[in-house]
Amino acid sequence: MLEELKEKVCKANLDLVKHGLVIFTWGNVSAIDRASGLVVIKPSGVSYDDMKASDMVVVDLAGKVVEGGLRPSSDTPTHLVLYKAFPKIGGVVHTHSTYATAWAQAGVDIPNIGTTHADYFYHDIPCTRDMKKDEVFGEYEKETGNVIVERFRKMDPMDTPGVLVRNHGPFSWGKDADEAVHNAVVMEQVAKMAFISMSVEANATSILYLSMNRHLVEKHYSRKHGPDAYYGQKEPKPKEKY
Amino acid sequence: MLEELKEKVCKANLDLVKHGLVIFTWGNVSAIDRASGLVVIKPSGVSYDDMKASDMVVVDLAGKVVEGGLRPSSDTPTHLVLYKAFPKIGGVVHTHSTYATAWAQAGVDIPNIGTTHADYFYHDIPCTRDMKKDEVFGEYEKETGNVIVERFRKMDPMDTPGVLVRNHGPFSWGKDADEAVHNAVVMEQVAKMAFISMSVEANATSILYLSMNRHLVEKHYSRKHGPDAYYGQKEPKPKEKY
Amino acid sequence: MLEELKEKVCKANLDLVKHGLVIFTWGNVSAIDRASGLVVIKPSGVSYDDMKASDMVVVDLAGKVVEGGLRPSSDTPTHLVLYKAFPKIGGVVHTHSTYATAWAQAGVDIPNIGTTHADYFYHDIPCTRDMKKDEVFGEYEKETGNVIVERFRKMDPMDTPGVLVRNHGPFSWGKDADEAVHNAVVMEQVAKMAFISMSVEANATSILYLSMNRHLVEKHYSRKHGPDAYYGQKEPKPKEKY
Amino acid sequence: MLEELKEKVCKANLDLVKHGLVIFTWGNVSAIDRASGLVVIKPSGVSYDDMKASDMVVVDLAGKVVEGGLRPSSDTPTHLVLYKAFPKIGGVVHTHSTYATAWAQAGVDIPNIGTTHADYFYHDIPCTRDMKKDEVFGEYEKETGNVIVERFRKMDPMDTPGVLVRNHGPFSWGKDADEAVHNAVVMEQVAKMAFISMSVEANATSILYLSMNRHLVEKHYSRKHGPDAYYGQKEPKPKEKY
Repeated sequence: MLEELKEKVCKANLDLVKHGLVIFTWGNVSAIDRASGLVVIKPSGVSYDDMKASDMVVVDLAGKVVEGGLRPSSDTPTHLVLYKAFPKIGGVVHTHSTYATAWAQAGVDIPNIGTTHADYFYHDIPCTRDMKKDEVFGEYEKETGNVIVERFRKMDPMDTPGVLVRNHGPFSWGKDADEAVHNAVVMEQVAKMAFISMSVEANATSILYLSMNRHLVEKHYSRKHGPDAYYGQKEPKPKEKY
Repeated sequence: MLEELKEKVCKANLDLVKHGLVIFTWGNVSAIDRASGLVVIKPSGVSYDDMKASDMVVVDLAGKVVEGGLRPSSDTPTHLVLYKAFPKIGGVVHTHSTYATAWAQAGVDIPNIGTTHADYFYHDIPCTRDMKKDEVFGEYEKETGNVIVERFRKMDPMDTPGVLVRNHGPFSWGKDADEAVHNAVVMEQVAKMAFISMSVEANATSILYLSMNRHLVEKHYSRKHGPDAYYGQKEPKPKEKY
Repeated sequence: MLEELKEKVCKANLDLVKHGLVIFTWGNVSAIDRASGLVVIKPSGVSYDDMKASDMVVVDLAGKVVEGGLRPSSDTPTHLVLYKAFPKIGGVVHTHSTYATAWAQAGVDIPNIGTTHADYFYHDIPCTRDMKKDEVFGEYEKETGNVIVERFRKMDPMDTPGVLVRNHGPFSWGKDADEAVHNAVVMEQVAKMAFISMSVEANATSILYLSMNRHLVEKHYSRKHGPDAYYGQKEPKPKEKY
Repeated sequence: MLEELKEKVCKANLDLVKHGLVIFTWGNVSAIDRASGLVVIKPSGVSYDDMKASDMVVVDLAGKVVEGGLRPSSDTPTHLVLYKAFPKIGGVVHTHSTYATAWAQAGVDIPNIGTTHADYFYHDIPCTRDMKKDEVFGEYEKETGNVIVERFRKMDPMDTPGVLVRNHGPFSWGKDADEAVHNAVVMEQVAKMAFISMSVEANATSILYLSMNRHLVEKHYSRKHGPDAYYGQKEPKPKEKY
């Protein structure tokens, strides 16, 4: 059943490892077959080293396992909420990738401050609100999906295909599993770059105290590039001492 | 003697390298056989490149070498104190992993601000108090164990399986050597993410000064995704100039 | 046509990957044959995994494709402006490398505060001004080249062979494609080091609160180096307890 | 001549690459044969990819090339000053490693705030003073050695085997080339950790604003570890919904 989709989902899960987005089993990718309404997802807590397409679990949109000998990812209900609320998406990714997770822990939207971001995400990548006690102790993973959907009430999930779940980590999506992984990689990269940009901006006055005397600049530049350059294996010139 | 445990401890030590937690010989893993009260531990100052199971040293809980031609890790007395004080643990790890060590140097507990942390550590990962002169110049490694135990007087070592030794670095533990290594990897990762989260929070006002004009956002997003997208290898459209 | 130059440009593009400057297809290298006025450039949006010299596209300085079955990089017009304005350059590189892009997002010139910088870049690496609406929605990539040229009006592009395009990322150049790649690697490295230097300078007062008691210093140094050292596999001395 | 030492110096140079301390040709290692007063050093600007023992250059303490077809490293005069001033050292290393260089650019001594530092460096790793115009435009590389020696006037170079040359980068030394490389690796690591520690200390108040509600902590910890854990591939319990 859905063997081709299982291959794609398995490969997309392994791509998370290849792109350095997961440690241990901390990530999962799913994809939906819109015709049948069935979702293929990674099994829970299985090592990426041994994962094969036949391990993928098939569930329906109600969360019932339709095929597969292993339990689906514990985050499955979150994925299902997203497939139901965002009809154009075909794949969903969740990771605890370092920088995006750090932003989620800070509870701050990743600002759209560069063309790398804007090439993939039209708006700031939003962070969800804090979850309430009954949401956490009720159907937690489903409610996690609900706070994502709530956050996108006035946003188009297709032009900003990712979110930070507060104190947790990033979810991303796309037209298929591959695009969802691609967006997860971009989100991690823009999270890293925005962290650095903010630090540069915040510490910019330090530049006033970080100076190098012009003699050193002259010396070093001319040592390599001037007419009297003596770095490397050129013919020694008479002027050089060493 | 305890050949199987030696294999496990040797492999666990090599896993520290695989996970990027150690430079040179800066780390050690041990495990205890509770039935006999014997501890298997890495030898001191031996390169990971050449390490084999038969190099592992067997010591009793009093610190006496029972088997092995090499000296045990100089941190052995710390491990032994932990095995005696925490009866449910089966493995102990010490590293100088970059981020956890940096927190230990700052003397700040790693705050539990994300689900990655909470998945493994129930509380903040605590930092021990400063050691006193007589502790340092007395039985230093044993006293290092004692300040860890003191720090856990009102905490359960099984629900928060790790600690920062002030100005030194992290120790972690678990039901066996593998779980102790697993917790060491998680501790390093949550230390890194908490460092980034704090910087994002501290510099958050910088976002106000980091803006990109909306024209650039429009342009870049539509260049890739709009109806007139011209990035990549689609058919050139008449409107495009390049 | 220009087969040797295509080989060089293809290899230079792959070097961007080798040096860790690109993710996915986010980078491009070109080189010019000054005799014919023809430019060889990477095709748009093609994966680095499959790239071969014959995929390189040949365009003239007006942007017309002279040879090649694929569309040239969407950044081609920027490269062409640079070749026309800077007659001594032979190669151009554009990437979204992490640290240089983060500086571009912050809109701050990378200050020349070290000899690593001065060995390759005589001045601060400048950041261009914000682009105007008509520039963005007009011939955007050409205008990107124009703001670079404008920024170098009073500067020699040969002694400071790189620039940050605001909210976008770095461009670099050199006498050929290889030197342009070399300068891109240096720019990323000096961007990273300047970010760290600024943070160290800004947080320098924290050193006052980060101290280790002298007992620990004595103990650790002498444990490894003193006459009574007991770390590693030397002969145990009678004085040692463990 | 000194073939064995050439092998060692060549290998030590390649170890700099293995430990990630150098980009391109930005580093050099030398060693001295105290009996003959001859120094073996890396040639200038030669790629590490092609380097072999026979490329190493032999110079006397006056800087005269005694053997070797290539020019010695342009930093040779600095090495020679150190060998003359510090009679117990046998090897010298210079790199532009990222974090140590960033501290040098900030002009701040690396504080001894952890046992990792104290295991190898007894004092803070000092930064030299700014160099004067006539030092820079005179015998620059020799004067670089002189400011290092000046900085160690009241310090023992053997108990603190490294220095930051202001706005330039680190030099380290040891009883032989291997130990000098070892100390270069440690210096880079303690520079990185001290940078992180300072940021953690400076931003520590941010922890007050970074909290996760206790419900999430309970939920996540118990989801994996409590009696009703449902993460991974255990038998589903009746209580679980997914």
